[in-house]
Amino acid sequence: MHFQQKLTNSITKNQSNVCVGLDPDFSKFPKHILELEDPIFEFNKAIIDTTKNLVAAYKPNSAFYECYGLKGLESLKKTLDYIPKGIFKILDAKRGDIGNTSKMYAKASFEELGADAVTVNPLMGFDSVEPFLENENFGVFLLCLTSNEGAKDFQKPNKLHLQIAEKTRLWNKKQNIGLVVGATHNEEFAEIRKIVGSEVPFLVPGIGVQGGNLESAVRYGGKNSLVNSSRGILYASQKKDFAEIAAQKTEELRKEINKLIFNTEKNNF
Amino acid sequence: MHFQQKLTNSITKNQSNVCVGLDPDFSKFPKHILELEDPIFEFNKAIIDTTKNLVAAYKPNSAFYECYGLKGLESLKKTLDYIPKGIFKILDAKRGDIGNTSKMYAKASFEELGADAVTVNPLMGFDSVEPFLENENFGVFLLCLTSNEGAKDFQKPNKLHLQIAEKTRLWNKKQNIGLVVGATHNEEFAEIRKIVGSEVPFLVPGIGVQGGNLESAVRYGGKNSLVNSSRGILYASQKKDFAEIAAQKTEELRKEINKLIFNTEKNNF
Repeated sequence: MHFQQKLTNSITKNQSNVCVGLDPDFSKFPKHILELEDPIFEFNKAIIDTTKNLVAAYKPNSAFYECYGLKGLESLKKTLDYIPKGIFKILDAKRGDIGNTSKMYAKASFEELGADAVTVNPLMGFDSVEPFLENENFGVFLLCLTSNEGAKDFQKPNKLHLQIAEKTRLWNKKQNIGLVVGATHNEEFAEIRKIVGSEVPFLVPGIGVQGGNLESAVRYGGKNSLVNSSRGILYASQKKDFAEIAAQKTEELRKEINKLIFNTEKNNF
Repeated sequence: MHFQQKLTNSITKNQSNVCVGLDPDFSKFPKHILELEDPIFEFNKAIIDTTKNLVAAYKPNSAFYECYGLKGLESLKKTLDYIPKGIFKILDAKRGDIGNTSKMYAKASFEELGADAVTVNPLMGFDSVEPFLENENFGVFLLCLTSNEGAKDFQKPNKLHLQIAEKTRLWNKKQNIGLVVGATHNEEFAEIRKIVGSEVPFLVPGIGVQGGNLESAVRYGGKNSLVNSSRGILYASQKKDFAEIAAQKTEELRKEINKLIFNTEKNNF
């Protein structure tokens, strides 16, 4: 199934644009989880069990697994395998290298780990992105304008987000490119959307802990976009009830987004 | 020991500025290696055994291990552990993410895998780089100007290499930043070197298969820099003698660089 179709189906299934970032952090885990054989997987499994009917996608960030060595990477693989069929899986890895190397990252992401999409850092240009686009059933979310402070070092002063948006129009022959646009950038959202047109999905991090604005994320992200929350959902409670509280937070975000989408559509008619 | 000291010691030990890129590729392995229990590790082990007295550093590229799943990552760990003490180890991973995530990548690279340095993509700015710089005994090679075609998409048109060089001056408080500058860019070498001063080491990929110029790499790279070769060394022979031929190629490159360094120094006096 085509990248975009998988994403649309996943959003439609639960009427949700929420992406839950699965970023395990031992220091924030409830005590009873730490006592289990594979704490990372058990934590994620509990979160997936309570949220799977409320989300559009899960997005494990590779760093939070790599830092626990091989054991962590085993938990990453188990987590991706555990996500129910039909829910969109994004590997957040910010990969990108020269062509023959990016090809290996694409293989790792799509074939070995079974992700539907991977986040890619486009700094190295077209040949670093192309190998991820070869199969139209899989795709990328290119870093376009990130949600962190450091976006003001190279991205904003050079208006790289506009250049990346322009390149996206050229490179997106198979319609399997999405863009990462941080919710912390209200003004730039509209500019990026204007360049790439309405079909390119946005992955929007930066709400919650990072303080981004949900309203503009939804207004310019549109129907086929994903709003990510990680820490705000996973660690809302660090007690035995963590998975139930995570589900409550996910449901709150889902409803908030749906209300904003409804209002946006009403105002457009 | 400080990052720079480790690098200098390693260069001095074998009087070599050669970095061998350990990028395993089953399709290029000799047949007899493929029949072994852990072909990747056995291949690397043979290369390390014949080249360890000729190199300054080894640089495994993470992509070529990740694409073989957990088994590949186990081989990566074994390979890094096998590199003799005193030889500089670079994890080529082009990592970089928001601060709390980069922190996890730093942990993965330095603590879990035991690398001395990791290549970092600086697109996301200071907070994405900072966690890799915390401990002065470890450091980064920031992508400054890459050797591939795609460098002309965002890097060259914005002269990002000059901006990254300027930021390096600011960020390099602990003297543990190096820069990746592709050997395919003769003109820019001098400009970058002029901005960062003489102490910042360069990691120079792009000679060999990618067609870069060794002379300018050595002239502007200087004494504490590394010239990388991967495919040109590893796969010079794909027969039983691959490790011996790899050593010959390494030795040729080592001598060629040393001759260029000698000539450069002579001309400066």
